[in-house]
Amino acid sequence: MSELKVDTRLWSGKARNLSPYIPGEQPQHNNLCKLNTNENPFPPSPKVAAAISAVLTQQAEELRLYPAPESDDLRGALARAYDLDINQVFVGNGSDEVLALIFASFFMKERPLLAPDISYSFYPVYAQTFGVELVKIALEADFSIDPDAYRQPCSGIIIANPNAPTGLLLSLADIRKLASEHPNATIVIDEAYIDFAQAGTTVSAVSLIHELDNVLVTQTFSKSRSLAGLRVGMAFGSASLIEALTRMKNSFNSYPLDKLAQAGARASVLDTEYFEQTCQQVIDLRHSLTAELKALGFEVLPSQANFVFARPHDGDAIGIASALREQGIIVRHFDTPRIQEYLRITVGTAEQHQRLITALKELAAQ
Amino acid sequence: MSELKVDTRLWSGKARNLSPYIPGEQPQHNNLCKLNTNENPFPPSPKVAAAISAVLTQQAEELRLYPAPESDDLRGALARAYDLDINQVFVGNGSDEVLALIFASFFMKERPLLAPDISYSFYPVYAQTFGVELVKIALEADFSIDPDAYRQPCSGIIIANPNAPTGLLLSLADIRKLASEHPNATIVIDEAYIDFAQAGTTVSAVSLIHELDNVLVTQTFSKSRSLAGLRVGMAFGSASLIEALTRMKNSFNSYPLDKLAQAGARASVLDTEYFEQTCQQVIDLRHSLTAELKALGFEVLPSQANFVFARPHDGDAIGIASALREQGIIVRHFDTPRIQEYLRITVGTAEQHQRLITALKELAAQ
Repeated sequence: MSELKVDTRLWSGKARNLSPYIPGEQPQHNNLCKLNTNENPFPPSPKVAAAISAVLTQQAEELRLYPAPESDDLRGALARAYDLDINQVFVGNGSDEVLALIFASFFMKERPLLAPDISYSFYPVYAQTFGVELVKIALEADFSIDPDAYRQPCSGIIIANPNAPTGLLLSLADIRKLASEHPNATIVIDEAYIDFAQAGTTVSAVSLIHELDNVLVTQTFSKSRSLAGLRVGMAFGSASLIEALTRMKNSFNSYPLDKLAQAGARASVLDTEYFEQTCQQVIDLRHSLTAELKALGFEVLPSQANFVFARPHDGDAIGIASALREQGIIVRHFDTPRIQEYLRITVGTAEQHQRLITALKELAAQ
Repeated sequence: MSELKVDTRLWSGKARNLSPYIPGEQPQHNNLCKLNTNENPFPPSPKVAAAISAVLTQQAEELRLYPAPESDDLRGALARAYDLDINQVFVGNGSDEVLALIFASFFMKERPLLAPDISYSFYPVYAQTFGVELVKIALEADFSIDPDAYRQPCSGIIIANPNAPTGLLLSLADIRKLASEHPNATIVIDEAYIDFAQAGTTVSAVSLIHELDNVLVTQTFSKSRSLAGLRVGMAFGSASLIEALTRMKNSFNSYPLDKLAQAGARASVLDTEYFEQTCQQVIDLRHSLTAELKALGFEVLPSQANFVFARPHDGDAIGIASALREQGIIVRHFDTPRIQEYLRITVGTAEQHQRLITALKELAAQ
């Protein structure tokens, strides 16, 4: 909108003061090596397209009808897959929408919300959107999270786990400690990348839901299920937490998931084998990418996600990002204190890694 | 959630005080004559399923990627169809989401929002969600809207046109008058049903956008385009109004429309012929339904929508709704002052009308 002179005369104060989230760019060129938005290098399960095609061939007429407002079939499949009751499962239009509803439902309070100073950059945007005071707790020097640093009155704590963009994992013991020490705060664990952690299910906070009623876990179909294009995210928690989200949803938008997305997401949940296989492939590729970057002198954090956070030996992350860009290789750089010298590089295919490493070697030789 | 004892300990005050929107029920039984949620009796254009199938066969792999965040192709198609610039077009996850963003963008102000006392029942819900004071302006005795009744300071005015559940149309001259008299208020015309008005395009407020920068028009794919199952809605207005909505969207959820919905909705916009044909069929069916109900002694308001608002001669709307229900015919009754004696009946197929009229005749004969 660079050429538009924006007339804000009719805007609410809320609208005037927003600093919207800026997603990683989505350039539409061909032959781009796109390693900037943590998409999965593998396609979704073929059963997703098959399930959606089945709706289109057998029930296309039904697109004239409203979809199931609470996505019951999808939630039922998730409940079975994660050993929960259906009323402990909430779904939304991507985990971004789920997170927005969480902010409105649990953090619009007198006490502040606590979050790491370096984390998913949408959190401060939500805080502004919903008028929530966000107190940022500094990560340790090694970018790890110290639960003891969160000992202060709060409405809640939100932690991406593995954290973004560092890729570091907080242990289940530490999450249990946080939740136990704050029984009257809602502890949101944003597990967008958890399935890429070694032994993902055993480190997921979903297991804590049975013992702690203040733990709310979000996950997404956009990363480990290769469905960023379908916009489905979910939250797992006590039935009372899920009920608040449902009421909030029905005060914004009653039908956030269309009929096709519900069917496709459900098919993805049912195809456990494909899911586990592709997650393992991403983990293997992360290991090889980490090794190759280290061999080129990068410091690479021990990532448990589908990206690595890496610092070139001279710290010139922005120079490298810009030089790679000229060759059609897009990685993400954050112009944020403490992490300017790092690049976040999405785990891609073996071919993409080869192209990246070759380009980095050429740059180093110049 | 009837058996759940809800523990609201962790809920925000906002969450505790919500009275969520209650959509018309979506029963999943067979052989139901569903005339309660104003869905289109005709299927969507076959080109919608074809376009989505093409994505699934040719680009299924791309579901792993985030969709176009601003739905550029879809917005471009809408801009061409409605003779607007692309920056005068906004799309969202159903017009319900678009309306929610409108409330946040333009009505969160000191001055109240004005709306008819009888209108879309989601408006008071949004007002509560966003802390907007809503002043209800009484419809005239004949359920028409008198623009002179809106002469008071306000942040905006929202009017469904044709109005729901009455089906009555406000003239373009009256809308122009409202907008001209309130240059510093945002006048939102919710045209969910406008395509069913006789000569729909000439009564749409979209034409006013070129002369009045405070008119914002919402429309939806759920009614005239038979795509309630796909969740796509839009707003048309000045580039400055659309920019506010875009920023607000990007402070809630950056990617509300999935890749398939974008492709399907675009195909629907391009199939003008099918659209015009099915709208005309619905209009014809509305005329015949109106005549049949009148012949049975119903008072029927002159609807310009895909539903009729009808009062049985004895005013026992709730008794009839309940008796019809026993026969699998679902119509909508609102337990709201002034309209308890009316039923809102969606225009269905000729077969559905026959079933309804037969049932009503039998009831009358009892």
